[in-house]
Amino acid sequence: MLKVPDHQVAGHRAGDGKLGPLIDDSGKFYKPIQSDGRGSKEVAFYTSLSSNTNIPNHIRRFFPIFHGTKLIEASDGSGQQPHLVLQDIVSGRLNPSIMDIKIGSRTWCPQASEDYIQRCFMKDRETSSLALGFRISGLQIESKGSGFWKPERKLIQKFTAEEVRLVLRQFVSSNSSADSGVDPDCTFVSTVYGGSGGILTQLLELKEWFEHQTILHFYSCSVLMLYEKESVVKEMSSSAEVKLVDFAHIVEGNGVIDHNFLGGLCSLINFISEILTCSDVHTAKASLQDPKNYCYTNCDTQN
Amino acid sequence: MLKVPDHQVAGHRAGDGKLGPLIDDSGKFYKPIQSDGRGSKEVAFYTSLSSNTNIPNHIRRFFPIFHGTKLIEASDGSGQQPHLVLQDIVSGRLNPSIMDIKIGSRTWCPQASEDYIQRCFMKDRETSSLALGFRISGLQIESKGSGFWKPERKLIQKFTAEEVRLVLRQFVSSNSSADSGVDPDCTFVSTVYGGSGGILTQLLELKEWFEHQTILHFYSCSVLMLYEKESVVKEMSSSAEVKLVDFAHIVEGNGVIDHNFLGGLCSLINFISEILTCSDVHTAKASLQDPKNYCYTNCDTQN
Repeated sequence: MLKVPDHQVAGHRAGDGKLGPLIDDSGKFYKPIQSDGRGSKEVAFYTSLSSNTNIPNHIRRFFPIFHGTKLIEASDGSGQQPHLVLQDIVSGRLNPSIMDIKIGSRTWCPQASEDYIQRCFMKDRETSSLALGFRISGLQIESKGSGFWKPERKLIQKFTAEEVRLVLRQFVSSNSSADSGVDPDCTFVSTVYGGSGGILTQLLELKEWFEHQTILHFYSCSVLMLYEKESVVKEMSSSAEVKLVDFAHIVEGNGVIDHNFLGGLCSLINFISEILTCSDVHTAKASLQDPKNYCYTNCDTQN
Repeated sequence: MLKVPDHQVAGHRAGDGKLGPLIDDSGKFYKPIQSDGRGSKEVAFYTSLSSNTNIPNHIRRFFPIFHGTKLIEASDGSGQQPHLVLQDIVSGRLNPSIMDIKIGSRTWCPQASEDYIQRCFMKDRETSSLALGFRISGLQIESKGSGFWKPERKLIQKFTAEEVRLVLRQFVSSNSSADSGVDPDCTFVSTVYGGSGGILTQLLELKEWFEHQTILHFYSCSVLMLYEKESVVKEMSSSAEVKLVDFAHIVEGNGVIDHNFLGGLCSLINFISEILTCSDVHTAKASLQDPKNYCYTNCDTQN
C-alpha cells in the first residue's frame, strides 16, 4: 500500500491531487520521474552509479540505494506513471529530526538554458545560497511531546548566517525549537555532530572526496542530515546519518573538481565545527562554574 | 628613479601615456589608487592588515609588504597622484617565470552594484572562471635564451581545463613554451610545485586558512606564483613563491567562510596535484623503461 511520506521536508509533496513521491511499507521511496528532462537525468545518474567504479565504496553509502524504475499509480490521479524506486532513508526511524540543505552558492550548471540560469541566479541571490554557499530547503525537528517543529520553507531558505547558526543549534537541542525566545541547550551536539560516527565526520569524508573527484558536478543537490532524539537519550547513540539526494542536475566534471559544491560544503562544515567548538568551550566552563549546560551562538575561539 | 615594471603580467600597464604601476630601485612597487572607490578599498585593506590580529603570521607572508601611500608623478602625465607603496615582489629576481591566477568562479560580491554584477557575471561566464573556479589573468615563462613567452591575455583567460593543464606543465618545463607542438618536459615540476617549500605546500597552507577564516572575502583577488629557472638549475632550489595580490574587492566575511575563493583555490590545487602525481608516476616508469624524462597531460591515477 503506497502512501504519502510523513517525513518529507523539501521538494514537491504528494497529496491534494498533486504529484509527489510515495512510500511503501517495505522501505522503498517512489519518486515521480519528471518529464522535462530532469527525471531522465536522475535515472541516468542512479543507473550509472552502480557501475561507476570511480566512486569509492565509502562514498557510495551516501547515496540512497537504487532499485530501478517502476510504473505505479501517480499521486495526482494521472494514472500509471514511471517512478524511480529508491531506498526510503527514514524508513524504520521513529520521529527523525531532518534537515535538507541544498549545497552550492550556484544551483545552475553552465550548460543550462539561459532562461533556467536566470531563474536560478535570482533565487540563489534571494535565498542564502549566494551568501552562505548553501540554503536550508526544509527541516523538521522533533519537539518532545508536541510532534515536530517544521518552519515555513520560504523563510528558512532566506536565513541569514546568524539564523542558520541558531537553527543548527536548535537541531541538536532538547528544548523547544518553535519558541525563538528559548536559548537552545545543545544537549545532543556532541553525539549528533561530534564523535567518530557523527555528522561532522561524515561531512568531512564527503569533503575529502570532493577535493579530488573530477567526474561529476552536483548542481542543486542536497545534503540530508538526520537522527533520532530518542535513540540518543536511550542508547547514547544518535545513528546520525548524512545522505546526498536530488540528482536531476548532475553534469560531467570533465577533469575539474566540483568547486561550487565543495565551497558550499566547506561553509556548512565550518558552521557545524564552530558549534561543536563553542559547545566544548562552554561545556568545560559550565562544568566548572554552573551545573546548567549551555552553549552560545558565538564563542571566543571563532575567527 | 621610477620606471615601468619589466615583469608585470596582468592589470593596467603604465607606458604610452597610460596610468599604471611603477617601481623604483629599492624594491618598491607604486600602484595608482583608483578613484572609483576600489582604490580606497585597497588602501583600507592594506592599512587594516598590519593591525588585524586575526590574520596569523604564517598567512601574513602571502601579502606584499605595505609601506603606506605616497603622492608621486603618475605614469600618464597627470601630475602628482596618490599611490599605494607596496613591496615589489619580483625585485631581486632574475628572469622570473610568473603566473597570475584570479581565484573564484565569481569575481563580484553580493553587495556590488547591479551594473557591476552583470558585467562580471558575463566575464566570468566567457572566461574559464565559471567552469574552473579560476582564470589565468596573465603569465610569463622564461624561454632559455629567448627571453619570455608571454601569451595573449585575452586567450589565456578563456583557457579550457586541458589548456590550463598544459600551461601549468609548460610553466615548470625547460623546453620552449611558445611552440605548442613540443611536449613540456616538466623538468622543474618536483622542485617548483613539489617539496616542502614548493608552490603546492604554500597553496595548501592558504587553503587551510580559508577553510576557517570568516573575517574577509577576497573577490577578484589573484594568486601569483613565481620562481626562477636559473636558481633551480644552479642551486636546485626554486625559491618558488606564492603571493596574494589585488584587494580592491575585499568585503567583510560576517562569520561565513569565503566559499567562493576556497572552491577556486581547491580547483587550482587539484590541477597542480595531478601534475605532480602524473610526473611521479611517469618519472618512475621512465627511469625503468626510458632514459628520457617525460610527463603526460593525464595519468592513470586521475579520478
